[in-house]
Amino acid sequence: MSTYSDYKNHMQKLADVEYSTAVLHWDKETHMPAKGAAFRARQVATLAGIAHDIFTDKKFGEILENFSENKNLTVEEARNVELTRKDYARSTKFDSDFVMRNSQAVSEAYQAWIKAREANDYAIYEPHLAKIVRLRKEAAEIIGYEKHPYDALLDEFEPGFTSAELDTLFADVREKLVAFAAEIRDKPQVENSFLHQNFPKDKQWDLGLDLLRKMGYDFDAGRQDISTHPFSINFSPQDVRVTTRIDENDLANMVWSCIHEGGHALYEQGLLPEQYGLPLGRAVSLGIHESQSRLWENNVGRSLAFWRANYADLQKRFPEQLKDVSLEDFWKGFNRIAPNLVRTEADELHYHFHVMIRYEIEKGLIEGSIDTKGLDKVWNDRYREYLGVEVPDDKQGILQDIHWSHGSIGYFPTYSLGSFYAAQFFAQAQKDIPDLKAQIEKGDTTKLLAWLRENIHKHGRRYDARELCKRVTGEELNFDYFMDYAREKYGRVYG
Amino acid sequence: MSTYSDYKNHMQKLADVEYSTAVLHWDKETHMPAKGAAFRARQVATLAGIAHDIFTDKKFGEILENFSENKNLTVEEARNVELTRKDYARSTKFDSDFVMRNSQAVSEAYQAWIKAREANDYAIYEPHLAKIVRLRKEAAEIIGYEKHPYDALLDEFEPGFTSAELDTLFADVREKLVAFAAEIRDKPQVENSFLHQNFPKDKQWDLGLDLLRKMGYDFDAGRQDISTHPFSINFSPQDVRVTTRIDENDLANMVWSCIHEGGHALYEQGLLPEQYGLPLGRAVSLGIHESQSRLWENNVGRSLAFWRANYADLQKRFPEQLKDVSLEDFWKGFNRIAPNLVRTEADELHYHFHVMIRYEIEKGLIEGSIDTKGLDKVWNDRYREYLGVEVPDDKQGILQDIHWSHGSIGYFPTYSLGSFYAAQFFAQAQKDIPDLKAQIEKGDTTKLLAWLRENIHKHGRRYDARELCKRVTGEELNFDYFMDYAREKYGRVYG
Repeated sequence: MSTYSDYKNHMQKLADVEYSTAVLHWDKETHMPAKGAAFRARQVATLAGIAHDIFTDKKFGEILENFSENKNLTVEEARNVELTRKDYARSTKFDSDFVMRNSQAVSEAYQAWIKAREANDYAIYEPHLAKIVRLRKEAAEIIGYEKHPYDALLDEFEPGFTSAELDTLFADVREKLVAFAAEIRDKPQVENSFLHQNFPKDKQWDLGLDLLRKMGYDFDAGRQDISTHPFSINFSPQDVRVTTRIDENDLANMVWSCIHEGGHALYEQGLLPEQYGLPLGRAVSLGIHESQSRLWENNVGRSLAFWRANYADLQKRFPEQLKDVSLEDFWKGFNRIAPNLVRTEADELHYHFHVMIRYEIEKGLIEGSIDTKGLDKVWNDRYREYLGVEVPDDKQGILQDIHWSHGSIGYFPTYSLGSFYAAQFFAQAQKDIPDLKAQIEKGDTTKLLAWLRENIHKHGRRYDARELCKRVTGEELNFDYFMDYAREKYGRVYG
Repeated sequence: MSTYSDYKNHMQKLADVEYSTAVLHWDKETHMPAKGAAFRARQVATLAGIAHDIFTDKKFGEILENFSENKNLTVEEARNVELTRKDYARSTKFDSDFVMRNSQAVSEAYQAWIKAREANDYAIYEPHLAKIVRLRKEAAEIIGYEKHPYDALLDEFEPGFTSAELDTLFADVREKLVAFAAEIRDKPQVENSFLHQNFPKDKQWDLGLDLLRKMGYDFDAGRQDISTHPFSINFSPQDVRVTTRIDENDLANMVWSCIHEGGHALYEQGLLPEQYGLPLGRAVSLGIHESQSRLWENNVGRSLAFWRANYADLQKRFPEQLKDVSLEDFWKGFNRIAPNLVRTEADELHYHFHVMIRYEIEKGLIEGSIDTKGLDKVWNDRYREYLGVEVPDDKQGILQDIHWSHGSIGYFPTYSLGSFYAAQFFAQAQKDIPDLKAQIEKGDTTKLLAWLRENIHKHGRRYDARELCKRVTGEELNFDYFMDYAREKYGRVYG
């Protein structure tokens, strides 16, 4: 017979190892000297192996099965155990043969992806991608699903969400957003060349720290560093770090990365320390995580209200560069949209076309209606159709993302879910905090953060994403909130 | 039957976990936000526990016993296995009851030490120190020894060295160095107030980096950061980091810490990557480690030759502060010696009196000729006797060091051994590189570093410290080299 504290001790030991691995990863991306890479890779692999052994330990399976006090568990405790049982069942479904074949295929696919990018040639990557797809299909069968094999894969990143729901959402995107974006493309373009003057590194750095501070990011429980690709990472709710990058000729780059990663970090800082290592102390899904970064980035950071509060300060920091740019023109320029080729550089509307194309392809690959052979052509055709752009080569086309070569299929849709959840949450926050806009105009987001903490952050995985969305907003995820937000803002930006 | 690669894999897995723990420690001391401390402590403890389990795993014991290829091992392989068998035997001698009692006593002693320091009252600490001593005596019996129980404890830090040898060494210190230092104290003191002007942080930081570069420290396999207490730490021979601290009103503080930690780091950077995780890839002893830091700090960094090469650059960095100070005066001021109360602030001569007092006390405690009761009086009496200073209170006296409260008895002597080995090694290097002084005067220490790499660094634990010393210098550790060095230098500094 096992007790809740046996369970908790085991989970927290696992968390200690996982978060230690995260520290190694953070160091690698921010501070590690170049030659450290090879030994660091094996240190990370060893810790990952130990974490896997701890989690899939048969003794832990017995602990999970044989609760002596099952009936005495609190609601929170029971929920933790329930979620862990599900995670355990999922991770113990794979035998070591599959795990080895998968890890070898991923490692080879990643190398092939690097080579293919260098050669700018999808053909080098194709057989490896085909292998990844075969293994993901196999994984879907091992995991099991009700309707569509893609659901089994999606469940890893957005538990409980299905491809049927994604189909509905992206049908909306195809119908409403594609048309709206095309409409805007016919309007005269707004000016944003003022963003591409020289903005000195040190001053951008200070601005970034200040933006984080203003959002309510706790620097006693975090820090910012520089890395090639911005990310946020957590070692406990008391140590949640962000990174940014600075392009001296593009102010927007740093601003959006700071606010975006800051939004992710606020979520992690808002998880309950007493749930350390347990499901209720973890983020509920990638989609909800992304909703927190996107809410701060899009709904707050890209709003006119936000810059009413902050533009004078920005002008003071960069008087030469911004003295002749009015608040309104600054805001419009900062919100300029235009179709492009690369997802990570997309604006907040066209971004979803990038994601939609990947989702359509992923689903087609998994159900067998699309083949990896000729996939570059499929890719290029959809870019023409949805974004109206011609893909000049594979590097700017099908080879641009790392995700598939990591074996991640089912991940991309969560990026769009994030923005859609964000719009719906923010609409609700505006209802619950009637003067929210006025507060933001005064530079005060404390009530908004408190609302997020209370309604979203503190719950961890207590409710799944669907349930959380319903509890917070009274309805399931609804694309109209994002469309309303887009129409209102871009109606104004583009007249 | 086991193979060398079973053994190697197990050892390298252990190293991965230990070095991961080191990354966590480095981060804690350099970058971690304040609130991260509590969860970090448990993460470190978990990894330490996992490392302990990996090393003392019975299966590993079987691997060590049952080599199928014992006779086919190379000399290096056989030496690795031999050393690991010894380490394994030592660490498996302690049953879990002892380990628990010890870890509890250490944790309580540390807390008591903190409290005692706050209250400036040894009486608070005394019963805990008594417990530590009892446990160390018990440990000595468990480990076993030939002549003196202190030898069993010393063996952990300086394998193979005995208290009989330390007695001989410190008899020399008592006889020769105490007299010599007293002689110098009667001479007119040299001027060093110029070191206590304002030296801006940024400029000191740049100087520190440059000193490390000049020593041959590889910044592609390391980096420097700021911490409260300077230290060096390694995660592989390819990632060896140092930290320093900067006092704007004391140039010497940063300079010595950079060179000292740089010396430690050069040793670790010189270990062979192919011996990663194995005894031949580890430093041989604390004494030899300290010899590497002290050789660079004392024999190189405090020499007139070194500043002949570097003083013009230093004056250029701090023209206001140093324009009226001649090279000779600078060098003399940098080498000022004076008795003091606190070991970590001692000059390179009086330092050994501090160590000697601790050694005498430790040996007395372990053999029972000294009691923890009244130990503060013993401490103060010896400070009066050897250094001619009056200890005003416990905080500046017996409560100054953390070591005993960590359960480390047998550690202190290695500090002195380091300086004595350093003098002997440097004397040999001067023989082997006839124009070494001229090279240092030209700012070129590449041949010296190559000599250290070849004679000391690359061997790891291949030879024990005694054997290494004999191989490198043709004789066992001999205090006369240090005395000769001290007489020559301080004869000149003090006329």
